[in-house]
Amino acid sequence: MKTRAYAASEAGGKLEPFDYETGQLKHDEVEIDIEYCGICYSDLSMLGNDWGITKYPFVPGHEIIGKISEVGNEVKHLKIGQYVGLGWRARSCLICDQCLNGYHNRCVKGEDVIVHRHGGFADKVRCQSVWAFPIPDNMDVKTAGPLFCGGITVFNPIIQNNVRPTDRVAVVGIGGLGHIALQFLHAWGCEVTAFSTNPDKEKEARELGADQFLNTLDTNALRSSANKFDMVLVTINQDLDWDTYINTLKPGGKLHIVGAAPPMKANVFALVSGEKSIGGSPIGGPGVIKMMLDFCSRHRIAPVIEQFPLSKVNDAMNHLKEGKARYRIVLTNDFK
Amino acid sequence: MKTRAYAASEAGGKLEPFDYETGQLKHDEVEIDIEYCGICYSDLSMLGNDWGITKYPFVPGHEIIGKISEVGNEVKHLKIGQYVGLGWRARSCLICDQCLNGYHNRCVKGEDVIVHRHGGFADKVRCQSVWAFPIPDNMDVKTAGPLFCGGITVFNPIIQNNVRPTDRVAVVGIGGLGHIALQFLHAWGCEVTAFSTNPDKEKEARELGADQFLNTLDTNALRSSANKFDMVLVTINQDLDWDTYINTLKPGGKLHIVGAAPPMKANVFALVSGEKSIGGSPIGGPGVIKMMLDFCSRHRIAPVIEQFPLSKVNDAMNHLKEGKARYRIVLTNDFK
Repeated sequence: MKTRAYAASEAGGKLEPFDYETGQLKHDEVEIDIEYCGICYSDLSMLGNDWGITKYPFVPGHEIIGKISEVGNEVKHLKIGQYVGLGWRARSCLICDQCLNGYHNRCVKGEDVIVHRHGGFADKVRCQSVWAFPIPDNMDVKTAGPLFCGGITVFNPIIQNNVRPTDRVAVVGIGGLGHIALQFLHAWGCEVTAFSTNPDKEKEARELGADQFLNTLDTNALRSSANKFDMVLVTINQDLDWDTYINTLKPGGKLHIVGAAPPMKANVFALVSGEKSIGGSPIGGPGVIKMMLDFCSRHRIAPVIEQFPLSKVNDAMNHLKEGKARYRIVLTNDFK
Repeated sequence: MKTRAYAASEAGGKLEPFDYETGQLKHDEVEIDIEYCGICYSDLSMLGNDWGITKYPFVPGHEIIGKISEVGNEVKHLKIGQYVGLGWRARSCLICDQCLNGYHNRCVKGEDVIVHRHGGFADKVRCQSVWAFPIPDNMDVKTAGPLFCGGITVFNPIIQNNVRPTDRVAVVGIGGLGHIALQFLHAWGCEVTAFSTNPDKEKEARELGADQFLNTLDTNALRSSANKFDMVLVTINQDLDWDTYINTLKPGGKLHIVGAAPPMKANVFALVSGEKSIGGSPIGGPGVIKMMLDFCSRHRIAPVIEQFPLSKVNDAMNHLKEGKARYRIVLTNDFK
């Protein structure tokens, strides 16, 4: 069986049509006929080999929606024709301590959709069945893809940090991840503040759920927000003046990073005296992903997307790279 | 009323006999006739004005044990003649959100025993009654003082991070704080590893509760302890190669700092990919202090001390400064 895809043959290269053989489906796998695939900033990072782990030819794409086309003979809970979503992770060992405790996302023997295997800028993709999640009936399949990487990445910190509806939370960066975080936290009942360098985003940020908007280029505004937030969720992957952000936390507050930012410098005294912490997390476990899907279904939460046909994938990647995406790009499979 | 004390008149100065007037006791205060006072490294830091907040004449001392000698007219729960302990904090506002939620140690309107007031290297000291804690009957008053700063500083992280008896915990630095942490964590049922630069401490560390001992000067041993600990509790106040320590945490693990270390540099990617965090805390709230005293009483936990008479306070301070204290120094009031 052949899979038709778009691949780059070198770091930063253009994505070109590329076919590859898939062989036989494993007993615990499913195959998905891809209809939609979101673009995540990590697709760009992997394309450029920014993390030194990319193998070429490289097929990006890990925010996948499609119908099950084949199931391995051990797979009983999914049916051919059923809509599922697949995100960053494609496999986990299921027997390490992390998997056994529900943290399959932290499994070090796991496999990721676009790391040393081919991703979702294609007509088909495969994964271990536990990582293919049925889409709730009332959810729009066109917009659901970005939930499986961008969405879970900002939902998981809410669960892991035990955020409560009484909390005040700031979201740093209103882009592909941040615009979903605003919706989650608003539905969660929190007071939500959007932190952005772009004042043009204020109106939309408020529509998405922000109660407050703070322009982070306004250093005075940032400094005067001392002792305000229970959690500051950092969705950007740049270096920050971390101490200024830590200063905006209440005593006991948590700075939570989900972007691949460069090494940080931070004042230890502020952490100790204010009982504050700095943490991070990658996507979320399968139990938390199901919880997120149910929450989105009940609260009508959906990524705000722009659509490109898969055949225009290079234009779409440039659009993201230039910071123009509002707020997540989804590719539509136009093979045939 | 005169209080007799030892004070320094300038940064790093010798402690000399010093009397001061106390005036009338406030309605919510108690006065304590001091019998014992531990020495904490922060007494040295404050003496040297390392944090820029010291006022002179400066009377150190904030690990105080003595008998109540007077109670303010609003104080109903403490009685004259009763043994109490007093630590770093002397007052909190009781009405801010932090106080109302049990985190009086984070109250920003609080008052600390040796900051802009006189401490426990004296025959008497006063505090808001909520910060004077009755000593359990079976506890030795001679050794109990260090629990009220050193002890609570390492007990609070166990509570705040929800450490469980199934956890593996490392204690970095086996000194005044670390030697109490080993006892707490052993009694807590954890697997305990002592991290120290001094191999001569191994035997005692094991007697105090360590299951393992790791010489942190052995960089290979440190590097090969990857993914091992649920919590790494840092009790020292020096700069570390933080990434190496973060690497010893399991996925989901917490690095918790209680020393006044200089600004830190850390790899964000390791925090995000391993869902790890770096936090800190200052002493603990009054509810947690009472919990600690009860736990020490039930498990027969006590600081290991060396005694000096208060009249030899300068020798005692030098002994600590030279790193010779095994493990905490307690001064005995020999006024009269």
